[in-house]
Amino acid sequence: MTSGVLGNIEVHGTPTARVAAAYRRIAEVDRPEVWITLRNEVDVAADAAAVEQRVADGESLPLAGVLVAVKDNIDVAGLPTTAACPEFAYLAEVTAAAVERLVAAGAVVLGKTNLDQFATGLVGTRSPYGAVRHADDPALISGGSSSGSAVAVALGIADIGIGTDTAGSGRVPAALHGIVGIKATLGIIPAHGVVPACVDYDAVTVFATDLDRAVAVAAVMAGPDTRDPRSRAWPADVPLAAPQVPRLAIPRAEDLSALSQPYRDAFARTVSAVNSTGMTTEEVDISGLLDAALLLYDGAIVAERYAAVGTFLDTAPASADPTVTAIIKAAGNTTGPGFAADLDALASAKVAAAVTLRGFAGLLLPTTTEHPSIAAVQADPVGINRRMGTYTNFCNLLDMAAIAIPGLPTATGGPFGVMVVTPAFADQVAIDIAARILGNDSAPTLIESGTELAVFGAHLRGQPLHWQLEEIGARFTGEIRTTDAYRLTALDTTPPKPGLVRHGPGLGAPILGELFRISAAGLGRFLATLPAPMALTSIELSDGRSVIGFACTYDAARAATDITSFGGWKAYLQDQN
Amino acid sequence: MTSGVLGNIEVHGTPTARVAAAYRRIAEVDRPEVWITLRNEVDVAADAAAVEQRVADGESLPLAGVLVAVKDNIDVAGLPTTAACPEFAYLAEVTAAAVERLVAAGAVVLGKTNLDQFATGLVGTRSPYGAVRHADDPALISGGSSSGSAVAVALGIADIGIGTDTAGSGRVPAALHGIVGIKATLGIIPAHGVVPACVDYDAVTVFATDLDRAVAVAAVMAGPDTRDPRSRAWPADVPLAAPQVPRLAIPRAEDLSALSQPYRDAFARTVSAVNSTGMTTEEVDISGLLDAALLLYDGAIVAERYAAVGTFLDTAPASADPTVTAIIKAAGNTTGPGFAADLDALASAKVAAAVTLRGFAGLLLPTTTEHPSIAAVQADPVGINRRMGTYTNFCNLLDMAAIAIPGLPTATGGPFGVMVVTPAFADQVAIDIAARILGNDSAPTLIESGTELAVFGAHLRGQPLHWQLEEIGARFTGEIRTTDAYRLTALDTTPPKPGLVRHGPGLGAPILGELFRISAAGLGRFLATLPAPMALTSIELSDGRSVIGFACTYDAARAATDITSFGGWKAYLQDQN
Repeated sequence: MTSGVLGNIEVHGTPTARVAAAYRRIAEVDRPEVWITLRNEVDVAADAAAVEQRVADGESLPLAGVLVAVKDNIDVAGLPTTAACPEFAYLAEVTAAAVERLVAAGAVVLGKTNLDQFATGLVGTRSPYGAVRHADDPALISGGSSSGSAVAVALGIADIGIGTDTAGSGRVPAALHGIVGIKATLGIIPAHGVVPACVDYDAVTVFATDLDRAVAVAAVMAGPDTRDPRSRAWPADVPLAAPQVPRLAIPRAEDLSALSQPYRDAFARTVSAVNSTGMTTEEVDISGLLDAALLLYDGAIVAERYAAVGTFLDTAPASADPTVTAIIKAAGNTTGPGFAADLDALASAKVAAAVTLRGFAGLLLPTTTEHPSIAAVQADPVGINRRMGTYTNFCNLLDMAAIAIPGLPTATGGPFGVMVVTPAFADQVAIDIAARILGNDSAPTLIESGTELAVFGAHLRGQPLHWQLEEIGARFTGEIRTTDAYRLTALDTTPPKPGLVRHGPGLGAPILGELFRISAAGLGRFLATLPAPMALTSIELSDGRSVIGFACTYDAARAATDITSFGGWKAYLQDQN
Repeated sequence: MTSGVLGNIEVHGTPTARVAAAYRRIAEVDRPEVWITLRNEVDVAADAAAVEQRVADGESLPLAGVLVAVKDNIDVAGLPTTAACPEFAYLAEVTAAAVERLVAAGAVVLGKTNLDQFATGLVGTRSPYGAVRHADDPALISGGSSSGSAVAVALGIADIGIGTDTAGSGRVPAALHGIVGIKATLGIIPAHGVVPACVDYDAVTVFATDLDRAVAVAAVMAGPDTRDPRSRAWPADVPLAAPQVPRLAIPRAEDLSALSQPYRDAFARTVSAVNSTGMTTEEVDISGLLDAALLLYDGAIVAERYAAVGTFLDTAPASADPTVTAIIKAAGNTTGPGFAADLDALASAKVAAAVTLRGFAGLLLPTTTEHPSIAAVQADPVGINRRMGTYTNFCNLLDMAAIAIPGLPTATGGPFGVMVVTPAFADQVAIDIAARILGNDSAPTLIESGTELAVFGAHLRGQPLHWQLEEIGARFTGEIRTTDAYRLTALDTTPPKPGLVRHGPGLGAPILGELFRISAAGLGRFLATLPAPMALTSIELSDGRSVIGFACTYDAARAATDITSFGGWKAYLQDQN
């Protein structure tokens, strides 16, 4: 029995067998600091058996038996939530909305993972439960703050790790481990049941070893939940695909000065590799974005961290991490007018960022700057951490989406990560670009919304009007054939177009076309510019579905030449040449 | 020469003659406190002459010769901006974006008007340039903070008054004068060139004696400007019309306890009158909205006022209004964590407000609570002002639009105002409802975007599928006829529908239909559910335009009964009955 399907990847073994294997692996790797609460194997096996029963009962569970590690600032009912501070702990009564959706889809929670306390840090060392060691080299940091979730995935214990990301916490550990981290647009994955870091800038994230898995999980977690007042639906004009030849912005050399030499080399080689895939890159001045990043900690917006846990830290709990405490308590001294002024600066920075990235499908960045040892970070707990957030900090502040994926490794074979960053809601564009960078044959689908449109002529891929579909972010979803109720005609138009004409069952032939998924607003804009004699109507496909697709007016159909025998427009065109 | 067209109302007289009349009126009314900077008549007349020349040169100027009073916290190049504090004054070098658009459309600025200092107040008395007296009864307050602009309109000096509205400043003076005040969704009219009050919650507003004028002016001022980072475009799914039978929320009796007895009576009679128009009203608990309103002054968000002018007031300028100074200086003591906590409360309040108003087209409220004398306000400068904002304060905080219009007068004939409040971007819905309340034959158009769709059968007004157009906020724009290239057929569908079939010029007859304007997303959603055998295509109209409209598939057209001779679907249906 296959226990689940994650993206295009099957997860093998029964859920109960997979649980047993995970606990063997946990014992084998001997990394106790990964977990704050590791559930009892018996309990987890019981959950897995229940999933097996649900599947046996006929439920369709996309994540059946998928093993999940949950960062310990996210509630799972029945388990304590500590945020890596034992004195802060409470027993969660309700599971966080995002995790609840995973469990409903058949996932099984292994336990709660270690983190930089109160999700404040990018290093993975700021925890009374121990510094989380890197999966491959225990002398190095794991990255944080979602340290345990990333290492549980990298060590092959969990299929997916759930983290959070305010300043880069769901991306930096991915970069340091050569895995994927998805930080969707703020609000797309509800943050209900999450201990806030900066409540206006907190995202729930996913780690997985590959993009398809990570996106499949993010898709399950996405969608508004009324319990998170900041959760958002995809807008009516959400783009559903990257352009065929994406143009990517990259930083100028001076914007990369924070990078260690090995990372600088790896980024340059990664950019070269990207250019060789057919995508284009162009340097832009990203100093405005990097300056805006300073508003996260250096200004007054950090007051959101104090608002979340400041009064708790004022009680001086014994396990409070001194670095985290210093940051959050200092945030208590910020002023209201200072906060207002920083929000104002942020509003301007958002507009400036949009101008910077105008005309680009996305921004390609190094995820972090270096891979330090635990000892180095302990010797300089603030400086290194700060530098490591150079390229991640601005993202949530400026309302952007980011997909963290492996870049080319360093010269010595160490992992190096890059991010594809896009404006809010262009998450699917970022995913498509990420898949192209990774050399994947296809890109996984995060956004399922929209309407399918069948095209048969000048809008087919490679045909002269295809750019109109690209412009509205239409996503190719496959080749299709009509039923035999249709005849194809060649119209007298410029450029040449076919007219699909419904005569009735058996009176035509299956006609070849292509299907594209389009946002509601994209489809409306497409229809608004539809020229005579074209029409859009309901078309019956050979697979039994009916979709909206192209037809033409009655008079044009009568005047046109019948080319049904070619079975499709491209075959007809080929014959004409 | 007609000097301009404001909505459906022509403004009579040449621009220069109108300027002369305005200055005669200014002398006649003897209300010097209305103006902080009244321009020299010679300069204004020269501007008017220039407008006459532009019209003579063939420019099409929708606001040619329309006379404008501009609140003195909005920049007009060449004039000082004081915000009602002489020590704060600076000479504006650039005209505010919104006013620039008016001038480009032919409007002529008379001068800059008095206001509650730094737009902090709803009374019109908080100014070193004098308390602005009510247009009809000088012992009463004008309302504020946009006091001078409202009185200039009410006294018949200016055609339109431009104000700002953070807490109600563009609505309360309208209510007290029986005129119209439009506070569009935040960001729709750019706030570039405005002295901020609370920069995240400031709207530029319009006063006029009637709704058509006010909306025509708002339409000219609307649209993003890159110089205002908070300016916003209408979204892709913007509703373009109110439902035919709007369902309005109204407050419960206990939510109206802040009202004076005369206003309570007037509101009750206004609600009765609204119910007699065919609209329906239903009581809802608006205590959540009223509680959220307290966040504007009683919490830390007021820090935005300190951020704007606090350091200036710290210099203790001699003309600082003591009440305004006390409010803004106290805001300097707010904390960052307090601000963060209030933003958090606001996020929840927004969701709660959306839940409260779900299923309603809008919320009908009294605009303000009472009409006090200047003496009463001077005796209690904070308490009365505070009460007067009960129903206006929450609006910008919760991202809502509001149209302030006259309600039925009080028992003694005094003005009483009501507001139609809608969620963000539903401004046109609010305007349509306001027009219905006012008993106007038609509602003016604020939002010009969208695509026109021609319908010929079951989607016509009064026909069984018309609700589908209402659901997507489609706006009726008129009856239309096709060219004579079309034949009409009766299809075999449920419900019965016609199929419009193009045969070619002279081969059919003009067919009667209706035109609706629909947002891009609305049109896409409409197309997505289009059932066979209907189609949408480009239709030629008898007036020479081509629009998207209904057709049907080829096989359906061939099988249907020709009913062209009826000239339209309704005539055919009538014949069948």
